[in-house]
Amino acid sequence: MKNKINTVCIIGVGLIGGSLAKALRDQSWCDRIIGVDKNIQSLHEAKQLKLIDEGFNDVAQCKVVPELVVIAVPVKSVSAVLSSIHNWFDDALAITDVGSTKTSVLEDLKAQFDGQIPTNFVAGHPIAGREKNGVLAAVSDLFVNRKVLLTPVENTRADSIHLVTEMWQQAGAEVEHIQAQTHDKILAATSHLPHALAYALVHCLSTQTHTPEIFRYAAGGFADFTRIASSDPVLWRDICLSNRDEILQALQAFDDTLKQLKTSLANKDGDALQAMFAVAKKSRDQFHQ
Amino acid sequence: MKNKINTVCIIGVGLIGGSLAKALRDQSWCDRIIGVDKNIQSLHEAKQLKLIDEGFNDVAQCKVVPELVVIAVPVKSVSAVLSSIHNWFDDALAITDVGSTKTSVLEDLKAQFDGQIPTNFVAGHPIAGREKNGVLAAVSDLFVNRKVLLTPVENTRADSIHLVTEMWQQAGAEVEHIQAQTHDKILAATSHLPHALAYALVHCLSTQTHTPEIFRYAAGGFADFTRIASSDPVLWRDICLSNRDEILQALQAFDDTLKQLKTSLANKDGDALQAMFAVAKKSRDQFHQ
Repeated sequence: MKNKINTVCIIGVGLIGGSLAKALRDQSWCDRIIGVDKNIQSLHEAKQLKLIDEGFNDVAQCKVVPELVVIAVPVKSVSAVLSSIHNWFDDALAITDVGSTKTSVLEDLKAQFDGQIPTNFVAGHPIAGREKNGVLAAVSDLFVNRKVLLTPVENTRADSIHLVTEMWQQAGAEVEHIQAQTHDKILAATSHLPHALAYALVHCLSTQTHTPEIFRYAAGGFADFTRIASSDPVLWRDICLSNRDEILQALQAFDDTLKQLKTSLANKDGDALQAMFAVAKKSRDQFHQ
Repeated sequence: MKNKINTVCIIGVGLIGGSLAKALRDQSWCDRIIGVDKNIQSLHEAKQLKLIDEGFNDVAQCKVVPELVVIAVPVKSVSAVLSSIHNWFDDALAITDVGSTKTSVLEDLKAQFDGQIPTNFVAGHPIAGREKNGVLAAVSDLFVNRKVLLTPVENTRADSIHLVTEMWQQAGAEVEHIQAQTHDKILAATSHLPHALAYALVHCLSTQTHTPEIFRYAAGGFADFTRIASSDPVLWRDICLSNRDEILQALQAFDDTLKQLKTSLANKDGDALQAMFAVAKKSRDQFHQ
């Protein structure tokens, strides 16, 4: 059942916000899409690409209260955005975000609403992205068959959850619910830690004597392994800071495995190496993507 | 100038040996390709795929001395193969290998030839591969536009180097010369360390409480990052053991970077995180693959 609504406001018209606008536009799910972005150039491009009907570089310029608000800025900027749309919370049907960490967003909300999470706020995280950034990289199928994790709390309104769920489904995503803390733990392991390791490896290699040769003779496996090190450093700095404790825990667990590996290697323990590699291969082979 | 030769013998008819046979066959570079493999099934498949003209599961069964011999077995098996073809060294124009580490192969030779490296041996390493193994995974374009690194020593015969170079060029590869030790140092950083880290990460995640969810919610970045953890555990055990010292050194350098990362994270030092990520992104963006 298609619950067509009037106005969606997307705050932060970058890769995620732009792609969502494009997908919703393709489905004619809403009458009007308003874009808000500090960057006038992004708004201009989004308008030219017909992703948004109107663009404002300040929320205050927007005279209507949108029924649905999507905060599509990096996690560290969510707090400032929440503050700027404080009075929209009274009338909006639902307000959601796309931040890569969820506990920090809920904390930001509590800080601004006397320790309470507004009942029409539905925290969310589309597990989708590209190494390219900005509205020009937006594609309408970015969320197709991707998971979107929503982390509603006990008193979140059912109609708000429903509306946000429907929006993501319109964009082709599979929506699931999960606790914010579990989300952060899982994403630390599956996304934040790998990004940190890829950055660390390329940084390490780029400071060595043989650096030009290293990159010259690198092959496809290296390309795959390090692709995520091309991601936006500011975005990932913010994600790391927002999910610091979980990432530190994940790093510690990884460090323990790395110590095992080193010991096996130092001791020329082929059986231990093979056993570790075989367990990893079996797990990886079961994961199809 | 096409230096068509009579007989090429490929010892080890797996992904690499099979793909080379296929490529040489396509170019009609030699009259006859002999395959040697302990695995009768592999020989049978290679024959059915018309990759080889004749197959033996023991070198002793081969009554002619091939002009060109390619040892395409995992590095740890090279020593046994060298021993089995000891008397071919007198007459072959060139004998080469495809092992992922080169110092260990040269040491194997010295051990068998009174401390000398035979002048017709040209150690080599095609930087190409797939996560799939075995002759059924062989493709004729595996080496197209891939680098093949040869590590001849001072007294290696020029005509032997020339022949091996030409063979790889026929398969579409770009051939370069490099010192064996430099090769091992570079490959430790660019291939062996990433494989070890990918195995370690997937092993680490596969032993955690939230493992099913971790894999359930993993996205494209994780798929890329961990793809090499699907590689053959035995092959990589052997590579790790063969290049142990260089890999341990690379691991140590990586560990130092990881410590920096942890400290920055623990101290909430956003500037340091961003600086590390930015250096990595810049290096990675310059590497096109």
